[in-house]
Amino acid sequence: MKIQLTQDSYGKSAVRVAKITRHSDYHEFKEVHVAIQLEGDFESVYTEGDNSKVLPTDTMKNTIFGLAKDHPLHTIEDFGLFLADYFLKNNPQVAKVTLDLTQIRWDRMTLNGTPHPYSYVGGGNEKATANVQGTRHETQLQSGIRDLRILKTTHSGFENYIVDQFTTLPPAADRILATELEAVWYYNATNGHDFQKIREKIREDLLAAFAAHHSRSVQHTLHAMGEAVLKNTLAVSEISMKMPNLHYLPVNMTPWGLTNNNEIFVASGDAYGYITGTLKREAI
Amino acid sequence: MKIQLTQDSYGKSAVRVAKITRHSDYHEFKEVHVAIQLEGDFESVYTEGDNSKVLPTDTMKNTIFGLAKDHPLHTIEDFGLFLADYFLKNNPQVAKVTLDLTQIRWDRMTLNGTPHPYSYVGGGNEKATANVQGTRHETQLQSGIRDLRILKTTHSGFENYIVDQFTTLPPAADRILATELEAVWYYNATNGHDFQKIREKIREDLLAAFAAHHSRSVQHTLHAMGEAVLKNTLAVSEISMKMPNLHYLPVNMTPWGLTNNNEIFVASGDAYGYITGTLKREAI
Amino acid sequence: MKIQLTQDSYGKSAVRVAKITRHSDYHEFKEVHVAIQLEGDFESVYTEGDNSKVLPTDTMKNTIFGLAKDHPLHTIEDFGLFLADYFLKNNPQVAKVTLDLTQIRWDRMTLNGTPHPYSYVGGGNEKATANVQGTRHETQLQSGIRDLRILKTTHSGFENYIVDQFTTLPPAADRILATELEAVWYYNATNGHDFQKIREKIREDLLAAFAAHHSRSVQHTLHAMGEAVLKNTLAVSEISMKMPNLHYLPVNMTPWGLTNNNEIFVASGDAYGYITGTLKREAI
Amino acid sequence: MKIQLTQDSYGKSAVRVAKITRHSDYHEFKEVHVAIQLEGDFESVYTEGDNSKVLPTDTMKNTIFGLAKDHPLHTIEDFGLFLADYFLKNNPQVAKVTLDLTQIRWDRMTLNGTPHPYSYVGGGNEKATANVQGTRHETQLQSGIRDLRILKTTHSGFENYIVDQFTTLPPAADRILATELEAVWYYNATNGHDFQKIREKIREDLLAAFAAHHSRSVQHTLHAMGEAVLKNTLAVSEISMKMPNLHYLPVNMTPWGLTNNNEIFVASGDAYGYITGTLKREAI
Repeated sequence: MKIQLTQDSYGKSAVRVAKITRHSDYHEFKEVHVAIQLEGDFESVYTEGDNSKVLPTDTMKNTIFGLAKDHPLHTIEDFGLFLADYFLKNNPQVAKVTLDLTQIRWDRMTLNGTPHPYSYVGGGNEKATANVQGTRHETQLQSGIRDLRILKTTHSGFENYIVDQFTTLPPAADRILATELEAVWYYNATNGHDFQKIREKIREDLLAAFAAHHSRSVQHTLHAMGEAVLKNTLAVSEISMKMPNLHYLPVNMTPWGLTNNNEIFVASGDAYGYITGTLKREAI
Repeated sequence: MKIQLTQDSYGKSAVRVAKITRHSDYHEFKEVHVAIQLEGDFESVYTEGDNSKVLPTDTMKNTIFGLAKDHPLHTIEDFGLFLADYFLKNNPQVAKVTLDLTQIRWDRMTLNGTPHPYSYVGGGNEKATANVQGTRHETQLQSGIRDLRILKTTHSGFENYIVDQFTTLPPAADRILATELEAVWYYNATNGHDFQKIREKIREDLLAAFAAHHSRSVQHTLHAMGEAVLKNTLAVSEISMKMPNLHYLPVNMTPWGLTNNNEIFVASGDAYGYITGTLKREAI
Repeated sequence: MKIQLTQDSYGKSAVRVAKITRHSDYHEFKEVHVAIQLEGDFESVYTEGDNSKVLPTDTMKNTIFGLAKDHPLHTIEDFGLFLADYFLKNNPQVAKVTLDLTQIRWDRMTLNGTPHPYSYVGGGNEKATANVQGTRHETQLQSGIRDLRILKTTHSGFENYIVDQFTTLPPAADRILATELEAVWYYNATNGHDFQKIREKIREDLLAAFAAHHSRSVQHTLHAMGEAVLKNTLAVSEISMKMPNLHYLPVNMTPWGLTNNNEIFVASGDAYGYITGTLKREAI
Repeated sequence: MKIQLTQDSYGKSAVRVAKITRHSDYHEFKEVHVAIQLEGDFESVYTEGDNSKVLPTDTMKNTIFGLAKDHPLHTIEDFGLFLADYFLKNNPQVAKVTLDLTQIRWDRMTLNGTPHPYSYVGGGNEKATANVQGTRHETQLQSGIRDLRILKTTHSGFENYIVDQFTTLPPAADRILATELEAVWYYNATNGHDFQKIREKIREDLLAAFAAHHSRSVQHTLHAMGEAVLKNTLAVSEISMKMPNLHYLPVNMTPWGLTNNNEIFVASGDAYGYITGTLKREAI
């Protein structure tokens, strides 16, 4: 019997970097969490315990901190591309570097209508993400948003679906639509973009399309959101979305002698719908 | 041997109520999570399995949903006081009702500078809280804020502390100060307050005092924040704060031949400081 | 206006200590998480930023690690009492030390029926706990168990409760009873006990009473469990329990043309019952 | 510009099924959490809001509960294969069904050395998993284990790795090795296996190989574990493992005038190593 190692990777997760950039008029504070994975000429590490080609994960962590010192950290995309490049250049045994970067939101405090020069307030769950996959031949970049909770109280229904033995869901002409959005997008080309500006435009389009859409299903709205992004941002070639339902179910008050006029809902922690979709601009 | 039941309570947790109030120009959406506990004449429930005086926790849950229908839900304080009153009035066997209410933040979406009439975006981790304890004789009310992350990049140090055998922490003249604040406050009187207005003023004062303070320790800043609240809001008689450190530790780059000029930090997930304090306005 | 600091404490949380004790025939591995809080003569720390009496929380952490070296760590109770004593003795400005200790379970691997000399498998969520409160005058000790999930498929019902406008729960003669138990107990005297032996006996009695009891409610079973402990372990004077319901609700299959003979249940993540009680042995 | 929907799926997550099977001498209790995703002829759902081919996710949930009634639920693999088959057969518009099944451990209580007929204790974090991907043409099955914490106090080192500018990790001849294992394996053929028996053997081999191995790195031990499984279980053709480090770092006590003889460690919550690998038996 012959056994083969067909896939392997190793790296460091939860490298939590914070940086203060002291501008003349204010302190910029950024927090970025990085996970790195390396692939390459590592078979003998696994099969023989030969560590001679192993860059320890502790050293990867140190390197990320060390490189953060001189990098401006304007965007996680720029930092991720820089890191991928560095690890490839300095480690000939490495064939591929994968980086996952997540930016934790900190917003400058606004006091009496002015942003404070060095105080911040935590900006909630929503996170900016980037994924870089670099090899000797090419670099792939993906940007994204995670944990963005959005909800609309109307202009959403779900009707005319299949009915079978197990159907108990009543059709709804007017229901709450809520989700915790995860979106990732690819670029036409990796370089030369203002990633922050693109991110802000995409976020705005996702929200605006969600708000404006007359939704017949989560799927239907997901598509409208992706379409808006691809129409408005030509630098983006493809967008994938994950939209788990946050269920707000109307409470049945009939047994209590009351009528719930679509006004009281239970935020359910039970089984939830999970919808995905990817939209791509076709090459002509 | 005689065994006595010296304390008992029962109730329902995680009653997650959402309400849409349809105003002429927009839909107001509120999400409030309620936990309720009852105490009273329940000894025989425990000792004999006699359920004749038991209001089931399922019925408590239904009641909360049912009452949310006609209550305006302006503030969690008003709703909590109303619920406590209802349960006491309708259940003679109950001596005490305790309610914990937490409001989940949903902010109206702002699109092109205007708030959207029926779309919301999740407002992050920060939560408004209220605790009501009602008996036949009196009602106690506490309001609060939870999970409010605040950070300042400077005007914070920690020096001149005790040094002993186990000291390794170097003194810091300029360090990051960050915490996830939990604050609760009591009122001079329970009724007649605009709880929302007070809450907004307290939040503003907590942030402003945190930002303005030249901090010699977390304790020192906690005190300044509490003082600001008591000075500015006479309706509040007492405030308690919990301030766990969010540690952002300077990364030692000396072994790498680099100098970290107080610019790169690791957001640590290890042991963390935890500071508490209560400030009270003295009766004269 | 006079403002007073009426309560304050500070300390370190999540001090996660692991220790290997190398016995001749096997390696003993223990993991204990400690939280410590100090109270005492610290008012000027808060009011004036005077750190001269402050033992830094970083030093507390170091001290706990340093003391773990020479302490046998047989039980978290012994270690907690030792730590409280040490901090009081070495810090005259401290009036009270509070320690929360949690032991993470690691069980020796059993391979081919024999325990392995140095390999362990994680023992699940259940945790042993201890709480020590030491002052210059007295020491209070509490031991406990947390996150112990127990379930029985029968010999549990809930009937004959109050019925009102909001009742929809049907009575159940035979239902699943499940909870995630948290129990804490006090001792007649703090010293001279074999805490580990007592803990094992109490755990056994809690499980046996839960299993044997014909339950008319969670309250009813909680009482039976506490009674069993107090009857069998004279060293314990008082026990408090928290028993949140883990709801396993029968699925209504009638709309699907099926009959659910009390066999299929949904493990619900929604609102849950929460029951507490304290039993005490009366002094004669 | 033409926009295309290039990927889509929808389904239900967190369908938490519990089942009691009443044997003559004891009650068997099982808890299985299911996530289902469908792919197929759903483009018009997204693009036009046409729900005529949509089986609602609520109905998927009901179907899973309904089918659990008559299925013996011996293994999650058997149940998953059955569900995939059902959804394909009854929904011509569906091209692919993906099912993720996770079994929550409940162990029968052992009281006085005998298993109790109807009482259970929660079996910790470790979970059995299965993944089924069924199309009109073929069915793929994967089984696995998640969240299995394992640790050894010795016979593990990490030395002779690359040293560069950023290296600070000292080589260790004898260190703690700990991980939270996730393993998944494929079968030579999908049918005709005793999945439970295979699972038990694989778990035993993973633990035994971990314990016996003289580890030069996590990678090295991962390989030894995979090799043991493939050698001993011919029904399995491939195994993938993920082994995040649980770091237990020796505490530096030198500044305190103490010598830590590899006995006291901090369980770190910071950045952690993450190692993956897949081993495959080669066809001859």
